Amino acid sequence: MNLKELVYKTRTCRRFEESHHIDLKILEGLIDLARMSASAANRQPLKYLLYNTPDFCERIFPSIAWAGYLKEWPGPLAGERPSAYIVIMGDKSITETYSVDHGIAAQSIMLGATEAGFGGCMIASIKRDLLRDELKIPERFEILLILALGKPVEKIIVDDIKDNDIKYWRDEKQTHHVPKRRLDELILKL
Amino acid sequence: MNLKELVYKTRTCRRFEESHHIDLKILEGLIDLARMSASAANRQPLKYLLYNTPDFCERIFPSIAWAGYLKEWPGPLAGERPSAYIVIMGDKSITETYSVDHGIAAQSIMLGATEAGFGGCMIASIKRDLLRDELKIPERFEILLILALGKPVEKIIVDDIKDNDIKYWRDEKQTHHVPKRRLDELILKL
Repeated sequence: MNLKELVYKTRTCRRFEESHHIDLKILEGLIDLARMSASAANRQPLKYLLYNTPDFCERIFPSIAWAGYLKEWPGPLAGERPSAYIVIMGDKSITETYSVDHGIAAQSIMLGATEAGFGGCMIASIKRDLLRDELKIPERFEILLILALGKPVEKIIVDDIKDNDIKYWRDEKQTHHVPKRRLDELILKL
Repeated sequence: MNLKELVYKTRTCRRFEESHHIDLKILEGLIDLARMSASAANRQPLKYLLYNTPDFCERIFPSIAWAGYLKEWPGPLAGERPSAYIVIMGDKSITETYSVDHGIAAQSIMLGATEAGFGGCMIASIKRDLLRDELKIPERFEILLILALGKPVEKIIVDDIKDNDIKYWRDEKQTHHVPKRRLDELILKL
């Protein structure tokens, strides 16, 4: 799979085969991709928590706000929930400004997850106090992103954007549609 | 090349074969990778400027602060400068908060550049007023990152970090050394 195929295949996914276990070695391999990605001023302030057991997944799930545009949908039902989570944190003892380090890292991780046959979702809309409490995360670490991972069961289609409406939606077959801006809208000629 | 090989090969590079032209089609292909990468709430607020001519490269170069830790080095000499630039901007008419969208996009672009045989550097340390003036960038667009691209001529080695010193350095052969934290330092067990 070349990078274009991998990037095209890496769609945000929110419904999974929950019983499909993701081995810790795979998660560690994903963090190694993040480790070798660029970091502002090479500070490398990101730290990671890895979870791949039903017990922890159940505890993390309530901290996440799912799919803002799907107002009727409270998030994946039991059986279709993520089977692993990566929590990306900033280590305040190194720096308190993380620039876009966690975006860079998250993209490396999600591409790696796709290559390994998984998929998932980058989530910044987090009930941080609840999560900190549940996982006993020390104050030294700022919670930046959660990556929810699993074996995708969702069909996702990318459409050209219409009427500037960027809201994703689901059709009657529960296929998830994502409107994307076209290339000629993104490249400016000044 | 699998993703791990690609990520490992994607080192921040600051010295290039300046005479090596990068075709506009290649740059457009890189933006397509960014286009298909995740965006917070699918807003897709990023816009891009592409430059691949000596004239524009010369005009952009003075807006960039190069390699903060190499105090003696003012940046690449003529002949070793980037032969293309991508300016990543936020379109304030869409949103004024870009989350880590530009980190995600930049990583897709840099991985794509490596796959295409190029390399480069994500730069946030930008003389923004100077750049805005030089390129006539309207106020509507916030300048987020510059990606400097070219055909690498630099040898780069990743070392395990020592004494928590994250500063990259050059040895007597002008090989660039980058200390990276080890995996077991990044993955926390709470």
